[in-house]
Amino acid sequence: MKKTIDKLSLVGVGNVGSHLHQSFIQEGISVSHVVSRSKPSDALLKQSIWVEEVEKLPANQLVIVCVPDDSIQSVLSRIPASCPVAYTSGSVELQHLSDRSELGVFYPLQTFTKGKEVNMFEVPFFIEANSTVFASELFDLAWKISRKVSFASSEDRKKLHVAAVFINNFTNHLAHISKSYLTQHNLDFEHLKPLLKETAHKLETQDPFDAQTGPARRNDQNIIEEHLRLIEDPTQRELYRLFSKSIHQTYFND
Amino acid sequence: MKKTIDKLSLVGVGNVGSHLHQSFIQEGISVSHVVSRSKPSDALLKQSIWVEEVEKLPANQLVIVCVPDDSIQSVLSRIPASCPVAYTSGSVELQHLSDRSELGVFYPLQTFTKGKEVNMFEVPFFIEANSTVFASELFDLAWKISRKVSFASSEDRKKLHVAAVFINNFTNHLAHISKSYLTQHNLDFEHLKPLLKETAHKLETQDPFDAQTGPARRNDQNIIEEHLRLIEDPTQRELYRLFSKSIHQTYFND
Repeated sequence: MKKTIDKLSLVGVGNVGSHLHQSFIQEGISVSHVVSRSKPSDALLKQSIWVEEVEKLPANQLVIVCVPDDSIQSVLSRIPASCPVAYTSGSVELQHLSDRSELGVFYPLQTFTKGKEVNMFEVPFFIEANSTVFASELFDLAWKISRKVSFASSEDRKKLHVAAVFINNFTNHLAHISKSYLTQHNLDFEHLKPLLKETAHKLETQDPFDAQTGPARRNDQNIIEEHLRLIEDPTQRELYRLFSKSIHQTYFND
Repeated sequence: MKKTIDKLSLVGVGNVGSHLHQSFIQEGISVSHVVSRSKPSDALLKQSIWVEEVEKLPANQLVIVCVPDDSIQSVLSRIPASCPVAYTSGSVELQHLSDRSELGVFYPLQTFTKGKEVNMFEVPFFIEANSTVFASELFDLAWKISRKVSFASSEDRKKLHVAAVFINNFTNHLAHISKSYLTQHNLDFEHLKPLLKETAHKLETQDPFDAQTGPARRNDQNIIEEHLRLIEDPTQRELYRLFSKSIHQTYFND
């Protein structure tokens, strides 16, 4: 029978865990216990009991596991058998984990930074579970803190994660390259920030295919060669070349 | 002797030209003539006289050339000899153009989209000219429409442009890849938009080096291999691999 989840425990209060903690509390869901190796913040301790071992979590109560992918299996194996469990990973497949009576996924597709406010109601959540009843319970729980909740298979969730890696991890790395390139040449990354902001802003309304500009889009080989000459770092140069090739393939069909 | 520029002509009213036109008018600078092959918008025609040939521009008045890089030289050669001229390119070197008595650069480091409002006062402008007096006049002109004006040599301007290509062109292309990957797998790019927004937002305050997350940052080879398996397109796979290598080199020093 479907239950309403109004009380849970969290394992891990890093970037994901600490934001989920805050959202649950705000929406009136009790986070009775948190598991963390180091002492959590005072604000968190006002709301939840800190335990250092997952074995000590209360029985029969949902546990949401917010730990790095490669620790999920070992954490799961130590959680009391009576607890339903969900984990927050984009890439770990449900069927690859040892079975429990209630096991599910509670994946927020967002980048979280400790101490930086995120509007959780805008964060897409993807739900999966080894029973339709538990999946539905997790869906309802996510719906209390977000207005963008979907069911997704492990396979689809992994593909969303691949796309997220392109959008977030690689974009961030481009900013790092851009900054280190400028710093290396005694130029200030601050000059680029309005451009970065507008680039993202534009993509909220415009299709990236239509928004593309620049030397590769115009097939301006002179500028491309000139830019390659101005990049000393071999990996950065290889990235510039590969992007130019990829953009060319996208627009000139070769 | 240094003059105050309060009247000018524009060649090209595409993305850059149309935004400059609007900003100049707003700040009380008269744009007496615009050159464009096709008829400009009615709004623009209320402010400026449309001519189809640069040869017909009024003498002795500043001309700002907002055309693609590879057309600048041919446009320059047809502008009346008495006109001071500036162009808006990031990559064309001043010394590579045939000399005129007053020739300069008026480079706004931003991506412009026709019809999409940009706060010009936040746009960094980079100024260069073949005389200090003309450079100073262009600086003052830019200062009327922006609060972020600097002088920059052709070499520095080109490096800023390289960095801008990484930040804007390549980020935009990552969004395209992300979208086409999802579309190909019947998933909705809308799911990724909050992440894209937050990625850019985070970089306004956080150093990209510190903000980096993801499988490559954690050196999680299992996930990287799994993601590569899920990408069918060879160029996209090559980009994923190269980014992962570049992130690895950045954090693990090899």
